[in-house]
Amino acid sequence: MGAPPVVGLADKLALFSDHWNPRIVGRYNGNEVRLAKLKGEFVWHSHADTDELFLVVKGRLTIEFRDGVRTLGPGEFLVVPKGVEHRPVAEEEEVELLLMDREGESNTGEVTSELTRTSLETL
Amino acid sequence: MGAPPVVGLADKLALFSDHWNPRIVGRYNGNEVRLAKLKGEFVWHSHADTDELFLVVKGRLTIEFRDGVRTLGPGEFLVVPKGVEHRPVAEEEEVELLLMDREGESNTGEVTSELTRTSLETL
Repeated sequence: MGAPPVVGLADKLALFSDHWNPRIVGRYNGNEVRLAKLKGEFVWHSHADTDELFLVVKGRLTIEFRDGVRTLGPGEFLVVPKGVEHRPVAEEEEVELLLMDREGESNTGEVTSELTRTSLETL
Repeated sequence: MGAPPVVGLADKLALFSDHWNPRIVGRYNGNEVRLAKLKGEFVWHSHADTDELFLVVKGRLTIEFRDGVRTLGPGEFLVVPKGVEHRPVAEEEEVELLLMDREGESNTGEVTSELTRTSLETL
């Protein structure tokens, strides 16, 4: 097994510009490390079979929950437990985000919308 | 289920100063998000049952493998596949690091040394 590759977040983020379309940049214990750019409002959804980790790289991200709101800036993370409904919102500016999800998980979980991405590109 | 807490990497890193003693700052799908400060040379080791993710927050981290060397700066990550021998080295300066390991995994994996930490503090 060879020495594994180094992945630069900024280098990978420079390769795309569309919103709400995560790219896969690494794999860890059956999970995918993903990068995404966000702007505006996402859809309410939950993931029945996976926690979801959000680590903000740039910008300010709001995540709405049914019983409260959380706001994350650069260098802050949050783990949404499986089954918990949430809605990410990038109100003011574009957000650059590192995510982790179980391999193959849809970005909208149990919900299907025009923002659903089920087959993600690997960068 | 309540809205989950926001975790600030800088806030948590300010809570400790010792080296090679990871703290747990989050849990995701049976894995632990850990933070550590590194200085000097660690021990050669591998993890039989878990991949290990290294994301550098500050400083420059060298990871030696049996067939090559990788160097990571801030905003760069690497996943060491399970079973692959490696040795982290923070040669020049202190490194601040985000790690992921399977829950309960020793920091030295299959090896026992004076740097082994099997019961990690949660911050």
